[in-house]
Amino acid sequence: MVRPREHAFDALTGEVRRLFHQLAAVVDALHDLNASQRAVLERLLRDGDQTVPEIARACRVSRQFIQVLVNELLERGLVVAMANPAHARSPRFRVTDSGRKRFEAMKAKERALLDRSPVPATAPEMQAAADVLRRVREHFEALDASR
Amino acid sequence: MVRPREHAFDALTGEVRRLFHQLAAVVDALHDLNASQRAVLERLLRDGDQTVPEIARACRVSRQFIQVLVNELLERGLVVAMANPAHARSPRFRVTDSGRKRFEAMKAKERALLDRSPVPATAPEMQAAADVLRRVREHFEALDASR
Repeated sequence: MVRPREHAFDALTGEVRRLFHQLAAVVDALHDLNASQRAVLERLLRDGDQTVPEIARACRVSRQFIQVLVNELLERGLVVAMANPAHARSPRFRVTDSGRKRFEAMKAKERALLDRSPVPATAPEMQAAADVLRRVREHFEALDASR
Repeated sequence: MVRPREHAFDALTGEVRRLFHQLAAVVDALHDLNASQRAVLERLLRDGDQTVPEIARACRVSRQFIQVLVNELLERGLVVAMANPAHARSPRFRVTDSGRKRFEAMKAKERALLDRSPVPATAPEMQAAADVLRRVREHFEALDASR
């Protein structure tokens, strides 16, 4: 029995997994921060100060995992803990000037790599693919929430 | 300065990361194996017996990480170590009958979930997105290999 949707879904999720790990390997080779540390920095810069539980919830990973990453960023002086009036025991983390500069330098390095060897896909193709991934993700998020 | 390709690339890689974690959360909620253990089982079933270093290389993750997963699968009797004439110290792992049954039961549960609540994307859309992800991945794999 051929089930084209199921086959396409398996192909898509397989590629998501493979590209996720490949991108992490690229980040590891390029920077002295790993892909997970980089992702936390990016999230804080984009969405503003957040607590460890907030980051964990948004990224769908464990609090313990995010706590380890945040501790590593703290040790390097890339983030700093801010008092959180809403929750004394759970500070919000803010990217420091040094963290912002570090992230900008990482982005510049990544842009240079992409300029040197452009990915073989057009902007509309990548946007369309991103849109499909977003719809699939939101579908599962809604299922999660309704459980 | 607007750089549509760069913007689309960022959107795509952001969604890859988010969907990767969301899919892992779905697997965790659905099964008593986690997404990484499930991925190792799937790979061995699809590509045949492999050593820990072979799986690690193919998945672009560390040997240590794969060793932990394989040990967990061994403990549950889902894989078994086979003598490896090519490399006495690095056995190849094979999925047991029990492992195969377990994987088939997981797939059936996933299919039932997808039948109950189909993802909001057509087969051609998902195939096109998978194709874009594959091209991006192969591009970075080739860069990696040429380093």
